[in-house]
Amino acid sequence: MSFDVNAVRAEFPILSRQVNGRPLVYLDNGASAQKPRCVIDAITRAYEGEYANVHRGLHFLSNLATDNYEKVRATIARFLKAPHEDEVIFTSGSTEAINLVSYGWAAPRMQAGDEIVLSVLEHHANIVPWHFLRERQGVVLKWVEPEPDGSLPPEKVLAAVGPKTKLIAVTHMSNVTGTVVDVAAIARGTDVPVLVDGSQSAVHMPVDVGALGCDFFCITGHKLYGPSGSGAIWISRARQAEMRPFLGGGDMIRTVARDEVTYADPPLRFEAGTPGIVNQIGLGAALDYMMDLGMENIAAHERGLRDYARDRLRELNWLQIQGDAPEKGAIFSMTMEGAHAHDISTILDKKGIAVRAGSHCAMPLMEFFGVTASARASFGMYNTKAEVDALVEGLTFCRELFA
Amino acid sequence: MSFDVNAVRAEFPILSRQVNGRPLVYLDNGASAQKPRCVIDAITRAYEGEYANVHRGLHFLSNLATDNYEKVRATIARFLKAPHEDEVIFTSGSTEAINLVSYGWAAPRMQAGDEIVLSVLEHHANIVPWHFLRERQGVVLKWVEPEPDGSLPPEKVLAAVGPKTKLIAVTHMSNVTGTVVDVAAIARGTDVPVLVDGSQSAVHMPVDVGALGCDFFCITGHKLYGPSGSGAIWISRARQAEMRPFLGGGDMIRTVARDEVTYADPPLRFEAGTPGIVNQIGLGAALDYMMDLGMENIAAHERGLRDYARDRLRELNWLQIQGDAPEKGAIFSMTMEGAHAHDISTILDKKGIAVRAGSHCAMPLMEFFGVTASARASFGMYNTKAEVDALVEGLTFCRELFA
Repeated sequence: MSFDVNAVRAEFPILSRQVNGRPLVYLDNGASAQKPRCVIDAITRAYEGEYANVHRGLHFLSNLATDNYEKVRATIARFLKAPHEDEVIFTSGSTEAINLVSYGWAAPRMQAGDEIVLSVLEHHANIVPWHFLRERQGVVLKWVEPEPDGSLPPEKVLAAVGPKTKLIAVTHMSNVTGTVVDVAAIARGTDVPVLVDGSQSAVHMPVDVGALGCDFFCITGHKLYGPSGSGAIWISRARQAEMRPFLGGGDMIRTVARDEVTYADPPLRFEAGTPGIVNQIGLGAALDYMMDLGMENIAAHERGLRDYARDRLRELNWLQIQGDAPEKGAIFSMTMEGAHAHDISTILDKKGIAVRAGSHCAMPLMEFFGVTASARASFGMYNTKAEVDALVEGLTFCRELFA
Repeated sequence: MSFDVNAVRAEFPILSRQVNGRPLVYLDNGASAQKPRCVIDAITRAYEGEYANVHRGLHFLSNLATDNYEKVRATIARFLKAPHEDEVIFTSGSTEAINLVSYGWAAPRMQAGDEIVLSVLEHHANIVPWHFLRERQGVVLKWVEPEPDGSLPPEKVLAAVGPKTKLIAVTHMSNVTGTVVDVAAIARGTDVPVLVDGSQSAVHMPVDVGALGCDFFCITGHKLYGPSGSGAIWISRARQAEMRPFLGGGDMIRTVARDEVTYADPPLRFEAGTPGIVNQIGLGAALDYMMDLGMENIAAHERGLRDYARDRLRELNWLQIQGDAPEKGAIFSMTMEGAHAHDISTILDKKGIAVRAGSHCAMPLMEFFGVTASARASFGMYNTKAEVDALVEGLTFCRELFA
């Protein structure tokens, strides 16, 4: 199947709007992606005619909503090539997912002095939950620095693993540099459980959690062209069996008495309360859309964007790009002498170009690169080479303004 | 302003659909409410033209989304009559909210032997997080039974408070019996912090957290005619100052380094990661709609439904109703000899009437009433006396079938 970017663009209503009198050039996909018509329609259809609470029903609408909701678990399993559907746990996104692992798996097993290996590439969502364990129970964080080009050789990660290492927590794709980490090589090289933050990678490349050989792999729906508050984490049955419940409430229990509580089997054990029913239904529509287009096709299109953008941005010899790993997604964090990242973002915005300025929830990585903020252009499946040209033109205008 | 139930009904698209060939009679509002057009439109509008990630933007769409999202905080503050807007913390619903209090406030302060007073009326969402503290750190749960009619005298709750009591956790309205608890009297009678589960009450009556005098008050959006995955908890500034962070990730930090993390000021300190942006925007639309109708008007309409339903159901001398407190919402949990609750629900469903069967996430209360399951009819603002008649007719049909 061929990938027709114009057909894809036509599915995203927001892409036809103007910003500041210019056609929107949305290059902030690393922060959150826009939503296709099928996702918006799935939400509307649910609320207009197929809505009730799930799991505890027995009436028509509740059964219908439960079917629509639960089948997304199978969709996510297919999207991640998960061996077992019950290994998919719904969450409100990656942040809740990683906190689930931190509170439910790591906290009860780790002693003072135990170590977690993590990379300097990580997003705060894959840092702060581990800092909690450091602050609260004396767990030691072992940091692995990337190479100057932003790449992260698996052997550097493995070299940081010692007898006290209880977990490796690593991103699959940096949200700042686009670096793709060879997590399969990491997982092959050690028996230590590996948590993979797939928040960026799953948007841009095919994922096979079995082939990766990891233990935990999380995705976040709002970056996957899905709704706010949707997401999931794949956790192998072996690790699930080692976890205690995290959030307490309805649906995750078997029995509740005054002096005792027993818990439901996984995955429900880790899904407390009324879930984000319609959010997850929307996520299912997003993943179906992506799989219909073909993740390989999406990846190929974005490789084309990456290569074109890399070439064109390299021509700008006054532009510094943080990270230039050979294996990277179409994400470019940039600084230029004399212009603050926030100024760049503001100027580009006047031309309708949305890029993000700041530390991108990755302060340790910014420190590694010696910058406090950058302007980041992050591409998605609907972006075009013409938008790369618009970015280059906009950056050149900034340069002229501030140099 | 007068309350026109037909005008209200016209705003809810799903209410015009049929179920099993009959007009839908939706009496499962205690589990989750249907959504008005304005909520569905707010979601569509956001995704079609006003979407980006919040807080870290600087581009037009991000600023617009941030404005739309953050102004919901003010809406919720107005809805709850909160003294300060920064006392409103966004959550994915009441379950996350109560876990936030359990993990963020209670867990670090409570020692083995410390006591939490809670009522037998509670929903599992306001039980299981406290069971965690019992299981994990030896906290003692002190249970207060309601009266046989389901009412909960404040003096009974206060009588359970002792020198080791660190928290009172109590519902404002039972999701099983509709019992309204006089939480203001409880809070007046003690210095012990009071957590109020407002998941049901805020849907059906005006709330003024200042007048209640409580410390924590949570709401859940999906019951408030709002979207999946929306909600909030009001926490007084004094209690917020005593809390440590719960979920770790982006947005809740000030700085992240390899060996140190510092946290943002509340409320952001307690809101990790990309929030449920559009869910909360939809909740804002729902609350605005309710406030436009007038919470007093909604409450008066539902009092009429309650009184009419109570009278009509009392005529059915073969029907047992669990809980009949003088102060109660329009929620009726029912059993009848010879028919299982699930059978009742299934039979009613054939007539288009949606009621819930089961233990309603309130097993200790079911045990108190000596039943394992009941069929629950729970009314909302769009229900009518004709629907009460349909329920009575349906129950009578069940009786004839099973007696």
